Amino acid sequence: MDHPKGLAGIVVDDTHISSTKNEKLTYAGYLVQEMVQRHATFEEVVFLLWNQRLPNKRELKAFRKDLVSKMVLPAETVRLLLYIAREPQHPMSILRTTTSLLGTTNDVDHDEPPKILAKMLTAIAAIIRLRDDEPFLEADPKLGVADNFLFMMTGKRPDAELSYIFNTVMILHADHEFNASTFTARVVASTMSDYYSCITAAVCALKGPLHGGANERVFDMLTEIIDHDEDPVEFVEQQVAVGRKIMGFGHRIYKHGDPRAAILKGFAEELSKKTGNEKYYDIQLKLADYMLQRDGLHPNVDYYTALIYHCLGLEKETFTLVFAACRTAGWLAHVMEQRGEKTLIRPNSEYVGPTDRNYASDTCMKKVVH
Amino acid sequence: MDHPKGLAGIVVDDTHISSTKNEKLTYAGYLVQEMVQRHATFEEVVFLLWNQRLPNKRELKAFRKDLVSKMVLPAETVRLLLYIAREPQHPMSILRTTTSLLGTTNDVDHDEPPKILAKMLTAIAAIIRLRDDEPFLEADPKLGVADNFLFMMTGKRPDAELSYIFNTVMILHADHEFNASTFTARVVASTMSDYYSCITAAVCALKGPLHGGANERVFDMLTEIIDHDEDPVEFVEQQVAVGRKIMGFGHRIYKHGDPRAAILKGFAEELSKKTGNEKYYDIQLKLADYMLQRDGLHPNVDYYTALIYHCLGLEKETFTLVFAACRTAGWLAHVMEQRGEKTLIRPNSEYVGPTDRNYASDTCMKKVVH
Repeated sequence: MDHPKGLAGIVVDDTHISSTKNEKLTYAGYLVQEMVQRHATFEEVVFLLWNQRLPNKRELKAFRKDLVSKMVLPAETVRLLLYIAREPQHPMSILRTTTSLLGTTNDVDHDEPPKILAKMLTAIAAIIRLRDDEPFLEADPKLGVADNFLFMMTGKRPDAELSYIFNTVMILHADHEFNASTFTARVVASTMSDYYSCITAAVCALKGPLHGGANERVFDMLTEIIDHDEDPVEFVEQQVAVGRKIMGFGHRIYKHGDPRAAILKGFAEELSKKTGNEKYYDIQLKLADYMLQRDGLHPNVDYYTALIYHCLGLEKETFTLVFAACRTAGWLAHVMEQRGEKTLIRPNSEYVGPTDRNYASDTCMKKVVH
Repeated sequence: MDHPKGLAGIVVDDTHISSTKNEKLTYAGYLVQEMVQRHATFEEVVFLLWNQRLPNKRELKAFRKDLVSKMVLPAETVRLLLYIAREPQHPMSILRTTTSLLGTTNDVDHDEPPKILAKMLTAIAAIIRLRDDEPFLEADPKLGVADNFLFMMTGKRPDAELSYIFNTVMILHADHEFNASTFTARVVASTMSDYYSCITAAVCALKGPLHGGANERVFDMLTEIIDHDEDPVEFVEQQVAVGRKIMGFGHRIYKHGDPRAAILKGFAEELSKKTGNEKYYDIQLKLADYMLQRDGLHPNVDYYTALIYHCLGLEKETFTLVFAACRTAGWLAHVMEQRGEKTLIRPNSEYVGPTDRNYASDTCMKKVVH
């Protein structure tokens, strides 16, 4: 084989969308940290990811209005959603089916990225409301995209501070160059399959516990420590002793700490105090200290996000859905870029099994051959 | 960027499943041409792909019985299928949703590859029957897997000759190392996502016209030539003049001819004569001669398969579904192998857009920042 397992560290293509060079996350050349410090909004960043330039005022206003106006599900999809969301499976399985369904109703032939993103946010909010046995909510034209998404999930209209936090969370999850789900979307796009197929496949990948599913596992871990009143340090040692991974630490790209985690940490602290979840945050601090000292590992994006979502009132089973909602922005940017390349992604493999085997002498069927 | 676009010619991982080395297609070390000349059955080949050894008599009998007994859909899936298959979208979109749905019903937590393959074949046959407004058929325990699949799609029990042809067609489509849909399935499997997510994502990729969708395009082309009573040579020149691709020719791996096409050509000839479709085959011969002479390109697996499926009575919109049915065997083999590696597939990209841009000076939002 030519390469390290999992294509680790191997540059497979050029991109104009995002970069993690020198462990700095940039979107189209803008440092993400600077954007969120200066209160960029989710829709501004989506415009940037899709056009590789910032919008002017008129464009931003029109883009926001367009996205919010499209946060509606076809009646067909709602009817099916009511049906399939009753299944007792993981909500990411429900989302996988729903994403595919969004691409099989009557009017999708000309669906373009704004409509697809708007429908995804709306469908995810709807799945979460269904789980909570709450009625669906309609988007409010006065709110931005992130605020509307939060409102449609939780029924609460965010104040300015929560709006800033949630816009930032969405921006920090919007893109991350060739992560596994984005790469999946690009492989599918390279066959010139349709947009919904690309996004469905990305959801399939994000579902995995080594990818988007990690935030849910982080919360499981925190809950386990609290429920059993365990010492975080002892917990780590016990887990490691039985060969288990401590979730939410380390990243293939960031060896000196995930820049997203540094921002999210402050929000986790703030929201956990506001919502009486300090005990979770205290454990996170202790665990993070110990993991750094023990293995030199820093928390990644999933680590503090788990607590933030919990403080927003979301069930842990729905954490990865919110991740999917944010990342749909990046997936669509990459699908557009890949479609423009018109080149199939089709690597080779190296066969390392036995060779020159003789079927005639090995098959049990030989006597029945005419 | 380190590599040619689309990872062309780049070995990204080891495998024990199949190989196209020296332009020879082998499954676990057995030459596929030899297997089909000696009348291997589809289930024998599936066993080989999944276990990397041939079954003994007892194992083969048990494997076939197990697969056929599992060719049943959950009542839930049937109910939803009746609903979604009415949508006027492409049947590959219906299959994408159906595959995902198979993974969201009650009893799937422990679904293993045999059940998944059996359900996929049954679901695909059901989608085709629904399109034809025909009732679903139950698998016949006396028939093998390929015969049952053909029976459940077309309502016809194949004779020995057709059984041989259809088993061979399924075997030739069962696997092909790291093609785009299989690679998609492996990327998803690398996140440790579930089997149905891997297979759903593979369907998303196969749908693309540069991949599985090609067989349908081949048939469109033949129909266009017949409908307009065109000369195949003139047709090629006209298409090339307007920048269109001639479908069904060339392959990234096989520069001297696709070994699968050589076998399928004989079947296309035989079946087209039997079913009064000689005019299609005559055009195929003329086109193939001219493409070889003009561009040195040989027909690929999709070229003759299109005509074979047409002769079997299948609508062209369903050709890629049959491809998906066969390839599910290979997808599952690769998903099992990838899961064993426990390594995330996560390449890097090279950012080539503008750098060091300044958000504060470029945003239209600057005045509203607190």
